[in-house]
Formats: sequence, structure tokens, C-alpha cells
Amino acid sequence: MRVSNLFTKTLKQAPAGEVAKNAQLLIRAGYVYKEMAGAYAYLPLGLRVLENIKQIVREEMNAIDSNEVVMTTLQRRDIWEKTGRWSDDVVDVWFKTKLQDDTELGLGWSHEEPIVEMMKQYVHSYKDLPVSLYQFQTKMRNELRAKSGVMRGREFVMKDMYSMHTSKEELDGYYEQAIEAYKRVYERLGVGADTYVTFASGGAFTKFSHEFQTVCEAGEDVIYLHREKNIAVNEEVLDEAAAELGVDKAELEAVKTVEVGNIFNFGSQKTDEMDLYYTDADGKQQSLYIGSYGIGITRMMGVIAEKMSDDKGLVWPENIAPYRVYLVSIGEQGGKRADALYETLKSKGIEVLYDDRDERPGAKFADAELMGIPIRVTTSDRLGDSYEYTERASGETLVLTHDELLAKLEQSQ
Amino acid sequence: MRVSNLFTKTLKQAPAGEVAKNAQLLIRAGYVYKEMAGAYAYLPLGLRVLENIKQIVREEMNAIDSNEVVMTTLQRRDIWEKTGRWSDDVVDVWFKTKLQDDTELGLGWSHEEPIVEMMKQYVHSYKDLPVSLYQFQTKMRNELRAKSGVMRGREFVMKDMYSMHTSKEELDGYYEQAIEAYKRVYERLGVGADTYVTFASGGAFTKFSHEFQTVCEAGEDVIYLHREKNIAVNEEVLDEAAAELGVDKAELEAVKTVEVGNIFNFGSQKTDEMDLYYTDADGKQQSLYIGSYGIGITRMMGVIAEKMSDDKGLVWPENIAPYRVYLVSIGEQGGKRADALYETLKSKGIEVLYDDRDERPGAKFADAELMGIPIRVTTSDRLGDSYEYTERASGETLVLTHDELLAKLEQSQ
Repeated sequence: MRVSNLFTKTLKQAPAGEVAKNAQLLIRAGYVYKEMAGAYAYLPLGLRVLENIKQIVREEMNAIDSNEVVMTTLQRRDIWEKTGRWSDDVVDVWFKTKLQDDTELGLGWSHEEPIVEMMKQYVHSYKDLPVSLYQFQTKMRNELRAKSGVMRGREFVMKDMYSMHTSKEELDGYYEQAIEAYKRVYERLGVGADTYVTFASGGAFTKFSHEFQTVCEAGEDVIYLHREKNIAVNEEVLDEAAAELGVDKAELEAVKTVEVGNIFNFGSQKTDEMDLYYTDADGKQQSLYIGSYGIGITRMMGVIAEKMSDDKGLVWPENIAPYRVYLVSIGEQGGKRADALYETLKSKGIEVLYDDRDERPGAKFADAELMGIPIRVTTSDRLGDSYEYTERASGETLVLTHDELLAKLEQSQ
Repeated sequence: MRVSNLFTKTLKQAPAGEVAKNAQLLIRAGYVYKEMAGAYAYLPLGLRVLENIKQIVREEMNAIDSNEVVMTTLQRRDIWEKTGRWSDDVVDVWFKTKLQDDTELGLGWSHEEPIVEMMKQYVHSYKDLPVSLYQFQTKMRNELRAKSGVMRGREFVMKDMYSMHTSKEELDGYYEQAIEAYKRVYERLGVGADTYVTFASGGAFTKFSHEFQTVCEAGEDVIYLHREKNIAVNEEVLDEAAAELGVDKAELEAVKTVEVGNIFNFGSQKTDEMDLYYTDADGKQQSLYIGSYGIGITRMMGVIAEKMSDDKGLVWPENIAPYRVYLVSIGEQGGKRADALYETLKSKGIEVLYDDRDERPGAKFADAELMGIPIRVTTSDRLGDSYEYTERASGETLVLTHDELLAKLEQSQ
């Protein structure tokens, strides 16, 4: 991609009224555009980051045999009434709307109920279980406040997965598999070391559920952390979980975090309420156990923007950056050399954003840094046959020959 | 993918209440699930078809230098009031909802207004033009009736593109480029020969707009066609367009069609109303010209299901089929041979759905036909070292050796 073909522009100043650092940086660098509080458009660079995050999550969900689907945003009232979750008193984030004949509809803020309803068509016997399905879906939540940028949206992309099982034990086993899959996701997203499996309040079936909390100054949550023992507990269940886990509350450190995932064991409550059962090998009707597992995709982008950035701008990890190389040309000979290198890199499948604009070198460098592309390569008349190679994260700069440059870019890919 | 890992099941009967052939077939074959009238979930096979259609459209939009973005579903009232399109009397398909503080919001049924509003941030000078952007976005339309399956949804996926220009002439040029890009899309989707660029009513700026209409018995539209002269006109502008094009109305044939795309020249009306201007080379403020260009993605899937199907089920064209090969194993030796072939095909990047179930051969064949996978390959004890190769569309069957089979599959890829 040539920068001259990108319609977005970097902005010197964060827009007035945007208080969250993640959104300030993402807007200034041209990744997102704020349509209203809690609702952001994703521009070409931002969309590439989102797709990269989704692809990592997709691979890990596929690896635990989950099937990708997409459910609808429009929601039927009767389905949610079966579990008592239609009422605005029970769920305070519903957006509601109406068909032309005045039938009330909701906008999906989660999808347990419609998934269970749908599975009545596909699950009848123990032979149909276990089953797991997931989606990347745009959720709507009527949040009272939305001041955390893309970390808390009224409209946002979530990966939500649902699994169904013949027994509590089978669900427990899959739940553990999901925890491991989630750990691999956060590891690959570059926040593994800062993300804790955190005890949170459970439901009718289990004492605890689990949240995945990433340490982040801008977080809206606080967790209590025992770093040595790798134990994390959220505020709601602090006393109970500390006792259960045998840790002294005084040894725990309060840390600001963002909830980047959660997993929840519904037992058979929801399926019983909605009349989804299966027939066992003896032909007897049995209760069915379900778990639900979420990861905030757009929120994840915000957390990474918050954590991996400096006073010059964003610093994307290589595997989710929109492009791997930012190519800067300076001067006439530099321009010719850059044109040739651009074609070479594309032909080798190395993703490159080519700043071919007629701009001052300083402006190009500043944009490369604000956008946070991992590697900057510069050609110029002064450099002659050589190329300047600079890493965004470390600032390390090397001057390389053409062959050395290609070897370096191909080796680290 | 193994059929035993697919949670969907084929259904013998179409569900009660679903009157559209496309939805009946897609539901029976496990591609979609009806959540309510006009709102369908896309299941693993259906999602793959949708992504294949999107990828073809994406490639053709990128080829005319358009930038991919995603705007929001939630819509601000003030933006749409500027052009008079907030009112339910003017636009009769709005879904409206409210924030907790009672601020009214709309759900996006199209995106001209928010795109123009956003571009105020990026377009200032003639140097910033032309620009084109597009999205695959889930549109919400509060249709009075929704009885055409996935061909007319209340919630559906659309590719909508918007281009902005310094002059009427520049817009006209891009408009022609878009017509050619659209033709390539329909050609690649296998409906090129049945899809007509059709004269439709224009707006303040142009006498005509253009629709892309595909001949289809289940269509809700009627166009008037001169096959020899390749001229198509819709009912609204029949007299006017016939006169303009110099054709005798008596020579035109009325044909049922589905509108699979439309392109519209807004001139500078919308940008003027919304105060988006640019500065020309002389520093003078000038009006800006925009066009909008839509393709119904989920509708396209419905049209193809309607047109490319027979009494046994769906018949996908190769480039949008969810898998290219449906592998059927019969018997013990056949099962071993199929296991090996499954691994070979996957390693060669040939997309294969492997029916590894313990089912009667007849049931497997019927499912392969209902699902419409282009090529069926069968292994069985009776076939020994050979493989049966059957084309879904033609029904042609060959018995091939292992090497012949691979050569055939690799050659046609």
C-alpha cells in the first residue's frame, strides 16, 4: 500500500472530547474515527489490525474444534423472556427497537439464548455432543458511560464461543481446554505475561467464573494479585477466593486491569429454562451443560494501543501490525531505489506501507512512529546503495546492503 | 473439515413458514438458520460461501483503488437531519433506538451521510481527491414484509462503496470504472450472462441511475429487456429510457429479476447539504461530487441458491462453494483409502469436506447433492484402488486411478 493512496491522515492533535489514550492515539494515527461516544469506525489500517487479532483468535478456537458462525444482532423477545433476561431491570444494557407492526426487538448484547434456541434444531442425542461454536459479532450495549475509547464501546466486536456437553465433567474438561486456548491467544497478542486468569463470581452452578485481566493503567477494573504464586482474584470474590486458595489477603497487590476475556460455566440452568435436552444411550431425556467464553476483539486493540505505545505514538507487535515495514524514500535517487524495493518486498509477501509522498523526511519519520509500524526502512541519496533499517520498539538502527536487508526481513518473518 | 465435526445436519423437509426457495434449500443443507423473518444466522458452510463472495467483491473494489473500512450500525440523528433523511416519512425502513439518556439513535440502513460527515476530517484540498472507500457492513432495514429468504433481509450484509471527486466529469469517469468492476464481480460469481445493467430513476443530478438486475424467477422486480441490443430498463423509467435509447417498447420483453447491485450519482447535492467542500488550486472553495455503489452480499448468496439448484439441492459454482470436494467413504477398505486421500488433498491445499460418518452410502450421496459441493469423490471396497469422481453440475462420473484423480483436481484448480 502506498501512503499516497491512504485517504486517512495523521493528526497532530487528539480530537477534543476524546479522553482515552487508546482512542487518542488510534484516531491521530488514522486507525479509527469516532462516530459518537462508544462507537468507532475502523479505517483501513485499523481494520487490518482487527483482522490480524481475529485471525489469531480464530486459529486458537478452531484448534479446540469450535465451529465459526454468525448470529444476528436483531433479537426476539420471547427467547430472552424464557430465562428472565429480557427485562431492562435484569439486563441494563439492552438497546430495544420495534418492527413496523410494533413487535419489540432487542439488539444482541450477548448470544447465549439465541444459540441455545438454535441448537434445538441440531442437538437431539448424546451422539450430537459435545459441540462448540463461536462468532465474531458486533455487540450492542447501551452503556451509561463510554469514556474508555475502544476499550468500552456501545458497539464493539466480540468473539463469543458457546460449548454444550452431556455432563458437568465433560464441560469442566472443555472449560480447561478453553483456558489454555485463551492463554495462547494472549501470548500471541503480546500481552501473555501481563494477563492473569482471575477468579470472579460464578453463577448458580459454580462458585467462581474466570476472567482474563490484563494489567493496564487505564483499566476500569482492580484485581488482587499474588505475582509469585500467579494467583489473581477480583474484588467481588476477594474474601472467598483468598480463603479457598489459602493466600493471605495482606500479601495481595491491588493492580489496575482491563478484562480482556471471561469464561462462564452456566451448568444446565439455561438449557433447562429453554427446554433444550438430549437423549442418552438408554433413550432417557437428560439435561445439557453449557459454557460461554468471550474475548473483546476491539477492546483488545485498545489495550494493546494503551500498553504498547510511547510519546511518539503506537508500537504494534509484529504479528498484529497492519504492515510490517514502513518504507520511506528521500530524494530523487532514494525514490527510485524505494520504488524498486517496494516491488521486491511485495513480490516476497512482505507487507509494506510505502511513504511515497512529497513530504519532508521528518514528517515521514514522525508518521512512521505515530503509526507504530514495526520496521522502518529508509532510502536516500545520501545512503546511496545502502538502506537504513530501524526498529520501532527498540529504536535500533542499522545500515545494510540490499542483500543484508532482504536476509534480515526474510529471517525474522 | 470432517462432516462428523460439523454441528449442522441436513434436513429432509423445509421448515414450516419458510416460503422462499433459496432459504428452504440453504436451511435444509445447513448453510443458514432462520432466527426470525428477515434475519438469518450464517452457519459454518454458509459463512464460507459468504466469505468467498466477499473476497471476490473485495478484490474488484481494491482493483479500482477503493479503501476498505467499517462504519458503525448506530447512527446519530443530527447527521441525517442535515439531508432530511432522518424522518420516517422520508425513509420508511429506519429502525430507531435510544440511549439511556433518551437520545434517539438510528440503525444504519445505508451510509452516505456518516461517510460524508467522516470525510470532513480527511478531505480539505483538491490534493485529497479523488477518494473511494467501501465496507462490508451489516445493514438494518425495517422492511414491512420479509418473505424472500436471504434475498430481502431486515438484517443483511451489503458492500457499499462511496467515491468523492473534484468534478462531475471525474465522478462520471469513476462511475464507468465501477460499472466495469461490477460486471467483473457478476462474471466471477457465475451470473454474468444473466445480469443486466439496467436504467433506473436518477436523482437531482442525473436522469438515470443504474441497477444491476439478475434474471431470476423468484425476483421481486420486473425489467424490460432487449436481449439483442443488450438494453435493460426498469418500470419506473420505461417510457423515458425507451425514448432516449431509441428502442420500441413493443420490442421489450418483461422479465422477473432481482436487484443485485445499484450505483447512484449524487452530484454535489448531499455534500453541499452537509457542508463538505474542498479548496481548489486557486484556494477557492468548491463543491464536491459523490457517487454510491452497492452490492447485496447475502442477497447474492440467495440469488445463486435460487438459480443454481435442482431437485436434489444446491449446485455451487467452484469459486464460491464452501468446499471443492466432498469425499465419501464406503466400507472398511474405502475408509482407509479415504483417510489417506483426505490428508493428501489437505496437504495440497484442495478444500475438502470429508464425510467420515457411519451412514448409508445413499444418505452420504444425498447430502453431498443437497449441499451442492462441486465434486464428489468416492472410495469403496468395490472400487478397490480406483476412485469415483462425480461432478455435481453435470452429473458426469469417471472412475480414476489415484494419479489421474490428483491430476484432475490440480488441473481444474
